[in-house]
Amino acid sequence: MAEVRNKQVLLKDYVNGFPEESDMLINASSTITLNLPQGSNALLVKNLYLSCDPYMRNRMNKNQGSGSYAESFTPGSPIVGFGVAKVVDSGHSNFEKGDLVWGLTGWEEYSIITAPETLFKIQHTDVPLSYYTGLLGLAGMTAYAGFYEICTPKEGGYVFVSAASGAVGQLVGQFAKLSGCYVVGSAGTKEKVELLKNKFGFDDAFNYKEEQDLDAALKRYFPDGIDIYFENVGGKMLEAVLLNMRLRGRIAVCGMISQYNLEEGEGVQNLSTLIGKRVRMEGFLTGDHYHLYPKYMEMVIPLIKEGKLCYIEDIAEGLESAPAALVGIFSGRNVGKQVVVVARE
Amino acid sequence: MAEVRNKQVLLKDYVNGFPEESDMLINASSTITLNLPQGSNALLVKNLYLSCDPYMRNRMNKNQGSGSYAESFTPGSPIVGFGVAKVVDSGHSNFEKGDLVWGLTGWEEYSIITAPETLFKIQHTDVPLSYYTGLLGLAGMTAYAGFYEICTPKEGGYVFVSAASGAVGQLVGQFAKLSGCYVVGSAGTKEKVELLKNKFGFDDAFNYKEEQDLDAALKRYFPDGIDIYFENVGGKMLEAVLLNMRLRGRIAVCGMISQYNLEEGEGVQNLSTLIGKRVRMEGFLTGDHYHLYPKYMEMVIPLIKEGKLCYIEDIAEGLESAPAALVGIFSGRNVGKQVVVVARE
Repeated sequence: MAEVRNKQVLLKDYVNGFPEESDMLINASSTITLNLPQGSNALLVKNLYLSCDPYMRNRMNKNQGSGSYAESFTPGSPIVGFGVAKVVDSGHSNFEKGDLVWGLTGWEEYSIITAPETLFKIQHTDVPLSYYTGLLGLAGMTAYAGFYEICTPKEGGYVFVSAASGAVGQLVGQFAKLSGCYVVGSAGTKEKVELLKNKFGFDDAFNYKEEQDLDAALKRYFPDGIDIYFENVGGKMLEAVLLNMRLRGRIAVCGMISQYNLEEGEGVQNLSTLIGKRVRMEGFLTGDHYHLYPKYMEMVIPLIKEGKLCYIEDIAEGLESAPAALVGIFSGRNVGKQVVVVARE
Repeated sequence: MAEVRNKQVLLKDYVNGFPEESDMLINASSTITLNLPQGSNALLVKNLYLSCDPYMRNRMNKNQGSGSYAESFTPGSPIVGFGVAKVVDSGHSNFEKGDLVWGLTGWEEYSIITAPETLFKIQHTDVPLSYYTGLLGLAGMTAYAGFYEICTPKEGGYVFVSAASGAVGQLVGQFAKLSGCYVVGSAGTKEKVELLKNKFGFDDAFNYKEEQDLDAALKRYFPDGIDIYFENVGGKMLEAVLLNMRLRGRIAVCGMISQYNLEEGEGVQNLSTLIGKRVRMEGFLTGDHYHLYPKYMEMVIPLIKEGKLCYIEDIAEGLESAPAALVGIFSGRNVGKQVVVVARE
């Protein structure tokens, strides 16, 4: 049986603090047989596009604190993440050779998927396949579930999105506009702020790094307060947002990326404002909402085809570029959804 | 027209930091006419029992921070709070002389209530009238709405209550037991811990002042984690609770009494655990839930009559004792609901 090269991105060892490119290793000497053994009900897939997501940072740690929701990666093994792949060999009755799928796969050229039922079969192929790493995958479902299910938007509501130019934030802002809300985003560079205003259609945006006083900044952009906060960063931003929430405001806690690389998290003040303003703050994981995926696709595919949704990808070419791409999202280097292309078909 | 003495407890001036008895003043020289002017639609009431509640601390400050929900008291005027009173003269068609009412009134012998529609008429007089300052008033409704509406209890759930021997906490614990939950409370003295276990029927209780490590304490009492946290204190306790919440846990934020006297609030770490555990944290105010009062009475009156609910009051005699009684609840001096008796009928 034909053995082929199977280049991989391995985690060298558990990471403490900020992940660096050197925490990962390219293994170019691995090989794989392009057939599944008789009787297997796994899938053998060829990986096409890989997704770099903030939550992956947690999986690089050894001992994840309470509240972690994903197991640690295994040192010496390939990184695991969401990706788009093509079925090369199938032992599972739901899939056949040639099918396109998205879901959890390995950072390598070929992967054996032992739990094929966790994969989504790609139905719409008349949109860029890489979109299934983000807009039509985890990031899209995160924005959709977080905004529509947790935030319960109402027309005319005031919406604030942090890390707004990220894969999820850019979509939340656009969903908010489609829902008739007023939406402001924060980001960490001038370029990203311009994108938010000029490409993604946010009503306004600001660079949080240029604000001495986040509370004052929010009061400037939301003189009447905030109905919905889509929380991606935590820390000082959350502290300032809490001072500006409106009565019965909703905070969907999607991520707290500002905290992931700190030895000890920052304490958040002003939580007692939750009482007087009757604010609901709720954490969510996208995985709980996958049953809404068909509903989401029904909404989003026409929006894409009609050009009503803007989506920006930051494409890194080849597995060799994957470690830098992943590390980059934690320093905000990427603009838009960070994707790694392994192969185009 | 007959003028009578109307002893009052006045706020001297706005309070910074911890309120002291000397921030209030007994005015024994005030008088009042025991008839309403012709055409008034106010009520003139004789105050019987006054309630000392944690939220009153906020109203003693001049500039309440964002998130405050009650206006400041007026220096030189009587303190305002919940109480039980008897109608002496009525200009309002819903009330007549001799009616018993509860609601917001003044800390004085007689008050003119200019918004009688905010008062509840007392229907059941075969229970101690003082109960309408707590069990059958604000504290009771707070426990009822917070526990049943915000926490959505399920049989077998693990419930933690902080400040558990307080007016609200003692009731939440008992409602939790009535709902088939396992309930543990924290309090600040050995005596209160004993009360929780031996009088209020908590499954267990601990003195938070004797715990070096609140996280470890919670893990001891909740090896399987906490489904419902009824939050009365904030700060370090909340930080530790966040590490111990179970999947889809609920935190009802009723108060954060540990923070009210701090110049700068304590920052709360571990909020990112909300994400992985999909925890909902929600502030509430009892005033939003008054429409449930009849439903609450339907539940609670039989429980009182059948002796299935234990309720402890800490009774201070006379308006002169009111300043000390109010100050005492912020240092945890009281045991059970702090009431001031102005007159018994």
